[in-house]
Amino acid sequence: EDFKQNKTALNVLFYTEKTMVAFSTLAEYGGARGPFDGDTTLVYNTLIANVGDAYSASTGVFTAPVAGVYCFILSYHAGGDHNAKLMLIKNSELIVATSDHKSNEPSDNGGNAAVLELKKGDQVYVRMAAGTRVWADGGYHTTFSGFLVSQMRELTPEK
Amino acid sequence: EDFKQNKTALNVLFYTEKTMVAFSTLAEYGGARGPFDGDTTLVYNTLIANVGDAYSASTGVFTAPVAGVYCFILSYHAGGDHNAKLMLIKNSELIVATSDHKSNEPSDNGGNAAVLELKKGDQVYVRMAAGTRVWADGGYHTTFSGFLVSQMRELTPEK
Amino acid sequence: EDFKQNKTALNVLFYTEKTMVAFSTLAEYGGARGPFDGDTTLVYNTLIANVGDAYSASTGVFTAPVAGVYCFILSYHAGGDHNAKLMLIKNSELIVATSDHKSNEPSDNGGNAAVLELKKGDQVYVRMAAGTRVWADGGYHTTFSGFLVSQMRELTPEK
Repeated sequence: EDFKQNKTALNVLFYTEKTMVAFSTLAEYGGARGPFDGDTTLVYNTLIANVGDAYSASTGVFTAPVAGVYCFILSYHAGGDHNAKLMLIKNSELIVATSDHKSNEPSDNGGNAAVLELKKGDQVYVRMAAGTRVWADGGYHTTFSGFLVSQMRELTPEK
Repeated sequence: EDFKQNKTALNVLFYTEKTMVAFSTLAEYGGARGPFDGDTTLVYNTLIANVGDAYSASTGVFTAPVAGVYCFILSYHAGGDHNAKLMLIKNSELIVATSDHKSNEPSDNGGNAAVLELKKGDQVYVRMAAGTRVWADGGYHTTFSGFLVSQMRELTPEK
Repeated sequence: EDFKQNKTALNVLFYTEKTMVAFSTLAEYGGARGPFDGDTTLVYNTLIANVGDAYSASTGVFTAPVAGVYCFILSYHAGGDHNAKLMLIKNSELIVATSDHKSNEPSDNGGNAAVLELKKGDQVYVRMAAGTRVWADGGYHTTFSGFLVSQMRELTPEK
């Protein structure tokens, strides 16, 4: 983006930092979220950061604004009295999951991370498996973050 | 790689990498750390890396040397016989937390991550909640890391 | 900073994105992996991404293709009936670990992350401690990811 803007303005100095894309979000529903009858997108409805506006806090979906390598990290807290299972999805493909079985433990934690190559427009989000739940109160525990690690750009000065 | 290819095309070299800022630290106290009567900054006192010297191993505080988007990741291990709760703080604001309840489990793990937009001088650190504790022996379990994802720079050729 | 130094030198466009290095992998063995009699490298044998081909899915070893700061993240799931312990190793040095004790819990989760300064050729991998095991079925739970955060490059136009 800066690329084009600069091209007209200068025949010189230039700025090649990657596009800024980064988000960090919380699921905050005043208590447990779930269980639901079917797999359900977990909408992390509270923004910590959303640089580049690529994450939607109303749908829970991140849409890659540029092609590149991205990193995603999710963490959850859950009461021990239900199963918990979250799945990181790219378009409709399962990438990684994190889960815990129902137990006598008062609580459980889990999380996972993945690095993904995305094309512009690819969508990444988190699904909560049917019959499971996570803790999503005001405790700032259940989070989903992502950021652009490396942008794919063609080496065309004329571009 | 592009570097070399361009060299022939242009006869100049240019350098716009972001500033290097990254740290990774361990809390190592020879055993459990805490509990304390009040919330206490957890000083991760052992450096794995501290590129840019923005983290202080004596105070536990990371101070952003440049404006930008940063990623922070924390992980802990704790014995099950106490509550454990860590909070990631930006200046004095709670960003994310990770915790576990006292239980009959011999041990528990937790962690969280967040991406933050920071101004130069913003401070980020981890607080341990009153009455809780984490494991901080020579086991390399309880860690705090962060790094600059994207640097905010003004697009001012004259600068 | 470098910006100013270069400003006098050029009137051209240029491309200095860092080298793309990022991988994300799963351990998938159709069930539990381990326990083994001795410490054993955990070969994450299923690739999610391997940009730059620096990770080997046959040996489990990541070899830094360029000097720089890298971030590594590992997550595991394990049945509660055995100890679990994974160690992130740089060359032969223990960097961080994550573990859980045998318990009556049906399952446990753990993970850790570290930022490391690597020289070209440094090797990073995960070891599973003797007598421990992790869950490595088709559930996409036990993962190892890494990526280049900042590349170290000399500011030598002649290079």
